[in-house]
Amino acid sequence: MTVKMNTPPDAAYPHWDTITTRWMDNDMYGHVNNVQYYSFFDTAVTTWLVTEGGLDPRDGQMIGLCVESQCTFAAPLSFPDKVLAGLRVGHVGRSSVRYEIVLYAAGSGRPAASGHFVHVYVDRTSRKPTPIPHSLREALSTLMSDAADISADPAG
Amino acid sequence: MTVKMNTPPDAAYPHWDTITTRWMDNDMYGHVNNVQYYSFFDTAVTTWLVTEGGLDPRDGQMIGLCVESQCTFAAPLSFPDKVLAGLRVGHVGRSSVRYEIVLYAAGSGRPAASGHFVHVYVDRTSRKPTPIPHSLREALSTLMSDAADISADPAG
Amino acid sequence: MTVKMNTPPDAAYPHWDTITTRWMDNDMYGHVNNVQYYSFFDTAVTTWLVTEGGLDPRDGQMIGLCVESQCTFAAPLSFPDKVLAGLRVGHVGRSSVRYEIVLYAAGSGRPAASGHFVHVYVDRTSRKPTPIPHSLREALSTLMSDAADISADPAG
Amino acid sequence: MTVKMNTPPDAAYPHWDTITTRWMDNDMYGHVNNVQYYSFFDTAVTTWLVTEGGLDPRDGQMIGLCVESQCTFAAPLSFPDKVLAGLRVGHVGRSSVRYEIVLYAAGSGRPAASGHFVHVYVDRTSRKPTPIPHSLREALSTLMSDAADISADPAG
Repeated sequence: MTVKMNTPPDAAYPHWDTITTRWMDNDMYGHVNNVQYYSFFDTAVTTWLVTEGGLDPRDGQMIGLCVESQCTFAAPLSFPDKVLAGLRVGHVGRSSVRYEIVLYAAGSGRPAASGHFVHVYVDRTSRKPTPIPHSLREALSTLMSDAADISADPAG
Repeated sequence: MTVKMNTPPDAAYPHWDTITTRWMDNDMYGHVNNVQYYSFFDTAVTTWLVTEGGLDPRDGQMIGLCVESQCTFAAPLSFPDKVLAGLRVGHVGRSSVRYEIVLYAAGSGRPAASGHFVHVYVDRTSRKPTPIPHSLREALSTLMSDAADISADPAG
Repeated sequence: MTVKMNTPPDAAYPHWDTITTRWMDNDMYGHVNNVQYYSFFDTAVTTWLVTEGGLDPRDGQMIGLCVESQCTFAAPLSFPDKVLAGLRVGHVGRSSVRYEIVLYAAGSGRPAASGHFVHVYVDRTSRKPTPIPHSLREALSTLMSDAADISADPAG
Repeated sequence: MTVKMNTPPDAAYPHWDTITTRWMDNDMYGHVNNVQYYSFFDTAVTTWLVTEGGLDPRDGQMIGLCVESQCTFAAPLSFPDKVLAGLRVGHVGRSSVRYEIVLYAAGSGRPAASGHFVHVYVDRTSRKPTPIPHSLREALSTLMSDAADISADPAG
């Protein structure tokens, strides 16, 4: 089985994933409920972390906790749409990363939503912030848009 | 069956609801997944609209669409917590309302999360913004905190 | 905060819980989607296990895995219904339990759905079946209906 | 974007779909929660109905209601697995269809789960059973396994 995306709809986002919608995503008004957009954000970020960023959610000592998220809704998504999720990094701090996500219905030229998702990386046991390891920092740099800031400032 | 809440944990929010958590709300890290907090926001707003605001999601001509939402996460919630959701209104425009929500685990003195949820009210058929009717505007006024702005400005 | 249920709607189920519905539970047809009924089953079983059965999902050495479930749908549930979930035990084997659940919309005299949910208890690390400990077996006996079978047969 | 499946893992199921998992599908035990398997069933059935069976969930006069479902769980699924859902029809009655579904993690030779899902087709307004139209009946025949029964018996 192969999944290919011929033309990512927005070059400002370096990484793209395809997420399938589910019948129960649609709410009474016939569109994907606003809450599910955040599951697409969460899934885009975590898929990248597991497949490209070296995160091991089962056994790794470091885990990512969401401390803030936001979404602006621009156009409806609707089952059975396939959702293209574009991912970039807006800021990397000492222990935190601001991910920026855009969602399109596949085949549409217009974004359905955009927003951000801030992870703080913590030790699995103590749940205290832990510095982002070098290998993840390097991987994150491939998700930076030109304007992004990757300084490891202590306020991050 | 009766549900009583003896002391709402934050007087700045006029309306409170109790939401039960579900086993599958907890994700691999043992806490309610960040996405579900928005389902609590969505549910607090819509429950109030149906029970107090006169919204009829099945047959009413006016429906509310979420155009923006945001959440700041402060402390974990975890199944089988009961969640207390406090609701207030921050702004009422011509067709839009900014709801502000705070979540507590029942029995905790510390908020788990706070955020907002902006609804635009539209005609069910045309999906064009529609002015908030007088009866809803009056009901919304009971959710206003002192600092809130209920002017019906056209930019709302 | 207290939750009281004056009259459980079906005496054949010894344990009752109240579950709140969420706006996004409703699907395009205006009722709680069939999938969510299983989250009510899953929640009724796991709430009882945590609060009455001594299960510690975070740190306990024993966990429960669902190996089979089934539901017959009789009447719609719809947000903002409160759901009353009745729980009883139909069979207890060496490592497995058959839970039987009935769901009512609060205030309705007619069941919305009924079904079952079979748990096998396994060791968290090896994921091999583990005998049900005596303390849980005693707690389960309080959920038995008259016709139920609590023999610890090895086929369980 | 194209999705191709080179070798469906089980020839007894004529139709296959790929469903992506989401981070929040995993529960505290590190695998896709049992409830979500039914969302895969529900999605496989409804995707086929919309894309192949002529169902229009927004405006069609006929809708499908789930009256019974069941699942046997054989092996875990886990985010970020892709799920292959195989679909066949076991029985077609006057107004009802028994769908049979099998789920595999992509790349696995062993089914994760199998079960069934019974739809009754009803009139959207009256919610009374309505005969399956000829065009849908023909489409359903392409999902029949050899052993299936497509007689339009009135008990269906």
